[in-house]
Order: sequence, then C-alpha cells, then structure tokens
Amino acid sequence: MHDLIVIGGGPGGYLAAERAGHAGLDVVLFEERKLGGVCLNEGCIPSKTLLNSAKVYEHAADGSAFGVTAENAQIDQKKVVARKNKVVRMLVAGVNAQMKANNVTVVKEHGVLNGKVDGGYKVKGTEKEYVAKNIIIATGSDAIVPPIPGVKEGLEAGYVLTNREILDLDVIPKTMTIVGGGVIGLEMASYFQTVGTEVTVVEMLDHIAGATDREISDLLLKNYKKKGITFHLGCKVTAVEEGKVRYEQDGEEKEVEAEYVLMSIGRRPNIKNIGLESIGVFTDKGAIVTDEQGLTNLPNVYAVGDVNGRYLLAHAAYREAEVAVNTILGKKDVMRYNAMPSVIYTNPEVASVGYSEEELVEKGIPFKKKVTPMAYSGRYQAEVERGDGICKLLVCPETNRLLGVHLLGSYASEIILSPGIFIEAEMTVDDIKEVIFAHPTVSEVIREAIFQLD
Amino acid sequence: MHDLIVIGGGPGGYLAAERAGHAGLDVVLFEERKLGGVCLNEGCIPSKTLLNSAKVYEHAADGSAFGVTAENAQIDQKKVVARKNKVVRMLVAGVNAQMKANNVTVVKEHGVLNGKVDGGYKVKGTEKEYVAKNIIIATGSDAIVPPIPGVKEGLEAGYVLTNREILDLDVIPKTMTIVGGGVIGLEMASYFQTVGTEVTVVEMLDHIAGATDREISDLLLKNYKKKGITFHLGCKVTAVEEGKVRYEQDGEEKEVEAEYVLMSIGRRPNIKNIGLESIGVFTDKGAIVTDEQGLTNLPNVYAVGDVNGRYLLAHAAYREAEVAVNTILGKKDVMRYNAMPSVIYTNPEVASVGYSEEELVEKGIPFKKKVTPMAYSGRYQAEVERGDGICKLLVCPETNRLLGVHLLGSYASEIILSPGIFIEAEMTVDDIKEVIFAHPTVSEVIREAIFQLD
Repeated sequence: MHDLIVIGGGPGGYLAAERAGHAGLDVVLFEERKLGGVCLNEGCIPSKTLLNSAKVYEHAADGSAFGVTAENAQIDQKKVVARKNKVVRMLVAGVNAQMKANNVTVVKEHGVLNGKVDGGYKVKGTEKEYVAKNIIIATGSDAIVPPIPGVKEGLEAGYVLTNREILDLDVIPKTMTIVGGGVIGLEMASYFQTVGTEVTVVEMLDHIAGATDREISDLLLKNYKKKGITFHLGCKVTAVEEGKVRYEQDGEEKEVEAEYVLMSIGRRPNIKNIGLESIGVFTDKGAIVTDEQGLTNLPNVYAVGDVNGRYLLAHAAYREAEVAVNTILGKKDVMRYNAMPSVIYTNPEVASVGYSEEELVEKGIPFKKKVTPMAYSGRYQAEVERGDGICKLLVCPETNRLLGVHLLGSYASEIILSPGIFIEAEMTVDDIKEVIFAHPTVSEVIREAIFQLD
Repeated sequence: MHDLIVIGGGPGGYLAAERAGHAGLDVVLFEERKLGGVCLNEGCIPSKTLLNSAKVYEHAADGSAFGVTAENAQIDQKKVVARKNKVVRMLVAGVNAQMKANNVTVVKEHGVLNGKVDGGYKVKGTEKEYVAKNIIIATGSDAIVPPIPGVKEGLEAGYVLTNREILDLDVIPKTMTIVGGGVIGLEMASYFQTVGTEVTVVEMLDHIAGATDREISDLLLKNYKKKGITFHLGCKVTAVEEGKVRYEQDGEEKEVEAEYVLMSIGRRPNIKNIGLESIGVFTDKGAIVTDEQGLTNLPNVYAVGDVNGRYLLAHAAYREAEVAVNTILGKKDVMRYNAMPSVIYTNPEVASVGYSEEELVEKGIPFKKKVTPMAYSGRYQAEVERGDGICKLLVCPETNRLLGVHLLGSYASEIILSPGIFIEAEMTVDDIKEVIFAHPTVSEVIREAIFQLD
C-alpha cells in the first residue's frame, strides 16, 4: 500500500506529490495528459508569453512618447506560439524532473477511484490498480462550453475556441468576439487587440473582471475602451455562426462580426469520471466539499485546487496542496483565504488581495477606504505616459489592519505580494508606516496611501 | 519662534517638513535650488525616465526572440531629455503642492545655522533670520570630484560630467568612459550602452556595484560584459584629456577613447557652509554624527539623509525624516537599518535587502544560504530569453529568519519590498511558507528558495 495517491498533475496535484515525496512519503501521481495541468499547458504560463510579446510589440510600434521610433513593426504569431510552446516544454520538463527528484511514481493514465480497502482506497489506471492510505483529488476544472446554438459546431470547425485552442492560434485574426469578460477573456482581448485584431467582448453582467473590486474593474474597462476594445455589457449571446456572433441587448437581437470566437464564460470543477461515487465523496454545487485542511467527508481523502470550487487559482491550489500534505504528515496547518491574491496580466495590470469593497458592504464589515493615484509614485510617472492607475486600500477601523488592497497599474502583479504579507502578518497601519519602501518604486504608492489614511 | 526649521528640500528635508506640517507644527523649509533635491532633479527619477526609454528602445531594436520585428529603430536623445524634464517638473510641482497643503513656509534661499538663542536655534537666509525650537539638517550630498589632472578643465569645457550634467546630455556619444562602477555609474553605463554608445567603466576596486553581495555583482558584471560594456577593474584613472582617459593597470599606463567622461566615484555629505560650527554640531569622517532618532550631539537638532553619511539613499532619508519628526512630536520611534533595500535599475535589475554574505562573514554572524535560479519562476521563463537571474537567501540558522535577500532579474526592484517586510516583521522561514504568492510571478522564486532551504 502506498502512502499517497494524487489524482491529477496540475499545480495542486504536482505540488502535493512533490512536497509529500520530499517528506519521504511513497507517492503515486496520476496524470493522463502533460504534467502541469491547465495552468502550465493551456493557461497562466502560455498566456503570459503572449502578453509579454504584446508588450514588446507595443514598444516597437508606439514608443514615441518615450523618444523611440521604429518602422514597420510586425509581430509573427507563428513565432509567438512557437516560443510559447518552447517555454511550456521547458517548464513541463522541470515538473517531471521535480517528480523524479522527489521519488514520485508518475502514472500517465486516467486515474479513477475504485472503492475502499482496509485502511485505504483503490485507484484504477487503465490496467493496474493502486492502493494508498491517503488520496488527494486534484482533477482541476474545464472550460464551460454553453449550449448556445452553433458553439459545438464552431468548436469542431475550429472558429470557436476555448482557452486551450486560442493559445495555439497562429494567425492574427481581423476580428474576434470574446464571450465572457472575466480574467481569461480580458487577457486574450488585451493581447489580440494590441497585436491588431478588432476585438469585441460580450458579457452577461453589467461589468467586467468578475468579482474584482468595482472601482478597479470600471477603471480597467475605461482603459480597454480607450485602447479600442468594444464591450457589450449586460448582453446574452444567442447564437454563433461562422463569421458572426448574435447577441441580445435590451431585448433587441444584434450581431457582431467574428472571424474567431473565444468562449470564456467560466470553468467547471472536474468531478465526473473519477469514481467519487465509488467511495462516496460529497459534492455540492458541482464541486467537492472540503474543510480548512482540504479534507473531504472521508478520512484521509483530500481535494485541492479547482475541483473544490473555491478559488480556481493555481496559487490557491499550491497552498491547499501544502496544507493537505502537512495534515497527512501530522503537522498542524490550516488554509487561510484572507490574503489570497489575484492578478489580471493585461496592460495596465490589475492585482488584488483580500476583500473588495462590494464584499465588505455585502458582509456588513465596517471599513475605511483610501484611493490614491499611482501618479504619486515617481517611478510610475517616469515610466507611464498619462497613466490613471490607482491603489485602493480598505482598512478595518477597529484593528487598523488591511482588509483589502486593489491595484491597477504597472508592476501590480509583483507588488501585490507585499500587501498580502501585511494581511497575513496582521500588521497594522502603524506597523506598515515603519516599513522602508525602496525609492523610486511603484510600490511606494501603498506607503503614500497608508499615510493619506490619516 | 517656529517649531521647526528644516535645512534642505530633498527627500529627507521635504518629507520631514510635510510630516511635521501635517502634524500641525509651524515649519520653515530652506532650499535654495528646486525642491526634491538631487534624487528628484538629478538622480533617481531622471535616471529612471532614461532607463525606461532604453527598455522601450531595446524592444523596438531587438524583439525577435519574442516574435517582434521592426526596422530602423531610433532613439531621440533630445526627446528623452525633454520627457525627463517634463516628468521632473511635474514631480517638483507635486512637492511644492505638498508643502502648501501642509502649511510649510518654503524659503528659497541658502540657510545657514547662526548660533543658539534661549530655547532654540537661529538660521539665516540671504536677508532674514529665522528662529526655531527644532532643527532638521537635510543638506544632502554632492558628487565627489577628485583632483585628477584634467577633470576640472573637462568639467568647465563640458566633456567631463557628473550625475547632474549627464542627465541633460542630449546627444548619444560614440564613446563614453565612466569613472566609478557604483550604482550611478552602472545605471548610466547600461543606458548609454543600450542606446548605442561604446561604454568603458574604469573602477578602482576589483568588483563593481560597491557593497552589493559579491555573487550578485559578479553575475551583474557577466551580464554587462555580454551586453558589450568594457570594464577595467582594479584600475586608477591618472588623467583626463579631451577625447581620452588615462589609467593605470598593474603599474602600466593605458588609455581609452572617451568623447565624454562621467565621474561617478562617490558622494560626499554637504556639511560645509551651513553653519554647523556656529552651534557646535559634531561631525566625524565628513558626516554629521546622529543617534537612532537622528539626533545630533545637540538637543533638538537632527540630521537626516545623506548628510549623516549612513546610507545615501532617498528612502533611508524618508524614514529617518519620519523618525526625527516623530521624536520631535514626542512619539516613540527608532530608525532600523536591518531591512534597508537598495536597487540598481539596470537590465537586469538588482535589488537587495539586509546583509550581504560578505558582511555576515566579516561580522562573524552565522548563516545558511540558498541560491535559486529565477528560471524556477514560470513568469521569468515566459518573459526572459536565456536569463541567468538568481535569488539568494541568507538565513539565520538559530532564529530561522532572513538576514539578507539578494535578487538579480526582472521586477527585482518592486519585489524587494516583500523580503524587506519578512525581515521587518521578523517572520521565520516557516511563517513565510504559509504566505500565498500569486502565480505566475517572478516573486515566486523567493518561495521556491525558501522551500529549497530544507
């Protein structure tokens, strides 16, 4: 009997296997596709290679504000995709190396739970059955493909794409319609608009960027519109055909041209065809129910990452994986979500940690708020022309600790770690005032906002 | 009698005035030149506008690794300098606005201490004399101009420059020799080499980047050499002439072509002509001696920023200014230097906080060390082609807290705040393991290094 079987080799799964293997456990990891999961192969990492090329292209095509000119700037989408593939290959090789270094047995098959045995659980591959005392389910999520007329046909024909296919698109379309203005939709909208595609985003809600603080998402929307992306908010897509998308706006049928259509309306935890029923794992609203150690209703059976339906973020999966493994190892650990960051890697970048203002209002949590323009940062002024970035602080008036920090502007993605640490370390506003921020950095806007609270 | 007179309107001086004014004190600030000091007018900020233009130019001129091509990439140095001037103007206006908003009386004259009165000190401007209970001396530093034959003449003729003049140089020279491979020298070397100048750095020491951790400065040197900068280390400049610099290497006289020469061998605290002797302020090794509240040997007389000779960094001055003002206000505060960051804004960036390995060895402080390639970060791989960036952790084996963190690679400047907070909040390695780092970010390399410590 093995110590642990991990089902799924994405961020939650491979990190669980790595940490458990490192601690000396005998670990089996099931993954039928490439290690790294959606994040590494079809999500976070590939999209970042594209967005980086867009930034380089933007500088080549339009650097005049900074004294730089060039002619005939071109982006070669085939090369962009080839580089993306190279980066993904290297990183997947890195994950494979980590599995080996930590003595994890990787089974490149689809793993299915197959009932209990004395003191353990069975997991069946295509041929062999494995038994382990502990199970970590990390099967991730899949893009939701809605039953809109024409979508299925479009996927087959190739003009309708999900996050998987769009990252391999090796042409720059004339037009693209993106159904769903969440993080994935916005990152792809930003990329393709920058490299020359006419992009339209159709979103059912009256705002973009999902649960992002509204002050931030409204400002992001303004920035995107200025860049030339068209938005139809509060609109429902009714049909997809080759070359166009039909949608309903205020009861009226409308249509928009679309050489390609990206479906990015959300993701659904993968709870099917993995044998949950064979051992009786509880699910609710399509996700596995877990406690703060990642434990399901069954002893020694954990679920981490997207499949638990909580955050659907790779770094949530990482930490959940560690908490589960620590619990298996008998080390006290607990998953906290109050300092969970989230990032949108567009230009400008968006990064948040903690509560949004809307969440605080909804939960009736009292707060003070300060919104400070990034222009207070000398580095921001030095590097950004006419930027309207902001730093928004939400502070508990009683404890004087940060409840939420929301950034829109350059380096937001890398800066957001710091306010996360302030929250995690339960530092008060007065503690933060004593922290030395390097000058000149964009991070300093947080320091400025902290002092403006008085 | 005023509550406070601040002498000098750079980062230490203007922030002291701002904070004191905000707290309701009656404050007079002396500054004969523009508010903002060297940092804003002739240092940190202007150099960052130039380095940002270099980054844009690099993308336009050489984006092929990322699938981007353009022809005839050009950088217009006149436009770069004009934009720099615009940014500086806006930020200086911002400092002026802060002085007004906080009721600070700005005297645009040279202020000189002029003896004591009952319960206070006198400061003389060009005409009027002011008296205050408290004094903050924040007169900053000036570039050292060594008595090397030809330097004085070159400065007058315009082909020898200091940090002040080089930021207004509106041509891209064919050749430039930089005397001194510290932060300023390296940033300018990086800029001019990128935009097309043939750059040579002559440095007396056997390494660049001053007190930077040697493993980092050696790697930085390797990167610069690869970019095409020539270094003559362990060399002494013996003479400067129009068009060339003479130097001594291993006892041999050599020379190098130099259309322009940048003198960047260091800075000297400004302790002259400010009347220190009129009240008897102690100085040592050319700097004002202060305690951990910034207090000099005299009651109610403080010195903050470069003039105290401690760190010569704007953000050190900021925090020292706050500690001095808090002390004046009767609030307990103390200056800590153990989490002091420092940054070199070249490509790649360097950022450090805490002790270097050499300092730990010298002081006999025990440590464990971990050096982790930035390539462990998926974002780094996605955005950097063939990068050799590293993250170096120095950890106390007893307390398990960070002693120093040294980064070479993209975003280092903005990431360094986080390890600074880890040190400031006295978090242990185990505490840091529970912090959620957004994925994918370059910051994650710190998390990886933390786990590799085991």
